[in-house]
Amino acid sequence: MKLIRFGEPGQEKPGLQLPDERRIDASAFGEDYTEQFFATDGLTRLQAWADANAATAPEVGSEVRLGPPITRPSKIICIGLNYSDHAKETGAATPAEPIVFFKATSSLVGPNDDLIIPKNSEKTDWEVELAVVIGKKATYVDEADALDYVAGYALHNDYSERAFQLERGGQWVKGKSCDTFAPLGPFLATKDEIADVHNLRLWLTLNGETKQDGNTSNLIFNVPYVVSYLSQFMSLLPGDIISTGTPAGVGLGFKPPQYLKPGDVVELGIDGLGVSKQVARALNA
Amino acid sequence: MKLIRFGEPGQEKPGLQLPDERRIDASAFGEDYTEQFFATDGLTRLQAWADANAATAPEVGSEVRLGPPITRPSKIICIGLNYSDHAKETGAATPAEPIVFFKATSSLVGPNDDLIIPKNSEKTDWEVELAVVIGKKATYVDEADALDYVAGYALHNDYSERAFQLERGGQWVKGKSCDTFAPLGPFLATKDEIADVHNLRLWLTLNGETKQDGNTSNLIFNVPYVVSYLSQFMSLLPGDIISTGTPAGVGLGFKPPQYLKPGDVVELGIDGLGVSKQVARALNA
Repeated sequence: MKLIRFGEPGQEKPGLQLPDERRIDASAFGEDYTEQFFATDGLTRLQAWADANAATAPEVGSEVRLGPPITRPSKIICIGLNYSDHAKETGAATPAEPIVFFKATSSLVGPNDDLIIPKNSEKTDWEVELAVVIGKKATYVDEADALDYVAGYALHNDYSERAFQLERGGQWVKGKSCDTFAPLGPFLATKDEIADVHNLRLWLTLNGETKQDGNTSNLIFNVPYVVSYLSQFMSLLPGDIISTGTPAGVGLGFKPPQYLKPGDVVELGIDGLGVSKQVARALNA
Repeated sequence: MKLIRFGEPGQEKPGLQLPDERRIDASAFGEDYTEQFFATDGLTRLQAWADANAATAPEVGSEVRLGPPITRPSKIICIGLNYSDHAKETGAATPAEPIVFFKATSSLVGPNDDLIIPKNSEKTDWEVELAVVIGKKATYVDEADALDYVAGYALHNDYSERAFQLERGGQWVKGKSCDTFAPLGPFLATKDEIADVHNLRLWLTLNGETKQDGNTSNLIFNVPYVVSYLSQFMSLLPGDIISTGTPAGVGLGFKPPQYLKPGDVVELGIDGLGVSKQVARALNA
């Protein structure tokens, strides 16, 4: 299944994107895509509902705004420098074990919402990433079992303010957490939709020009490894997002660096996970 | 007011601690202490309810477990090295601007719950801290207005696994987010309960021996500064927790360092914010 949420910010309703790409309203299913939904095997209930009702459910027009495909999770965990070409372009060493940081969950928005360039920002940058959505609580899970704890996958742009991240004293979270810095979607694809999560092309263009073009086959730490690893340090809760890192081609890596300005159009996609598009704008513009 | 939550983990009910230290059940108030509660001026409604009902509400026995005094927030933000004596003991420079990191909200527990020493941990450490609870959404707020966005204060122990934090590649969150690493409470004191938040003694003992004994007058970055500062980088949501840093006397700072082992008893307190006590135990012990 491909889960979507649609409607105005904060008032999104659950829906589905069908194999023929039609989007339908799943409000009648009666549940939103929350921690509780995933924790109680909601995907099985949703599949049963879809089998019976998808053909006759109301359609959602293509003009309707998409929200993030899940409700606000307990955490958005990111893996840093998880593609060797990206580690190289930033001047960092290839990490010996996963680098972990958080984004504030208040940064989560719909896949095509505007990117708001923060006040006093001069170094807002892009990062196309494969996001993993946790399906059940994971604490000290083995790598061999880790995929059992995954509900599915989504497209994520891990926007980053490089000065806030790297020049303002210490930890990266400061440059990762601004409002609108985590557009997720268009949809959450359940695990069964993706034949090989470690062989997906992911790309990003700025104003039509390709900036990133990588493949998840080049992940240094793959999905089961990352899920197992993180679960040694914290409990992963149903609905939690793990963003697995970005390949080469971020603004920071160009000589000279290239950063976003109002009016810039960022488009990105991952095989099987759809495309998203954000237009950059100044705060309050 | 002093807000408490009591009952079994995950099934806590709201309550109040009265000026005479009696604890009462506020279930009849009809709301838990959630983001929505704070966002809609629930404190005013709660005060009205208490004025009318506190005298006759059912009492909560002293044997009843306390939970964290608010429900799981969107984020727990911590300020690092915010007392110069603590910065010095860790060998770090006094920061030029606040060092910011997150704890996973899944680490939040009641004030007297057991501390679970994580698997493979040899360096679990303590940090008594003043926690600030946000009362309304704060985005780009000025320092002069910052206290308007604060609901109140609570006692927090920012447990930290120093090897996970400092020796496992990069960001601190890895050593801050284990389950049970954020005991909060016993209560949330509303702002009016604390005459001067920048003149509170805070202390911590290990097995009865004093380890930390500081005062919030020595904060490098004070509460309004920190709230305003953070709001430049992310939206603070109602119910969010900001832990303002720890004074000298953490295990890492001793020569040789001292870390927690099963059976250790940690007690801590802050003037006007009560005391808490955690017993360390091994995972699954």
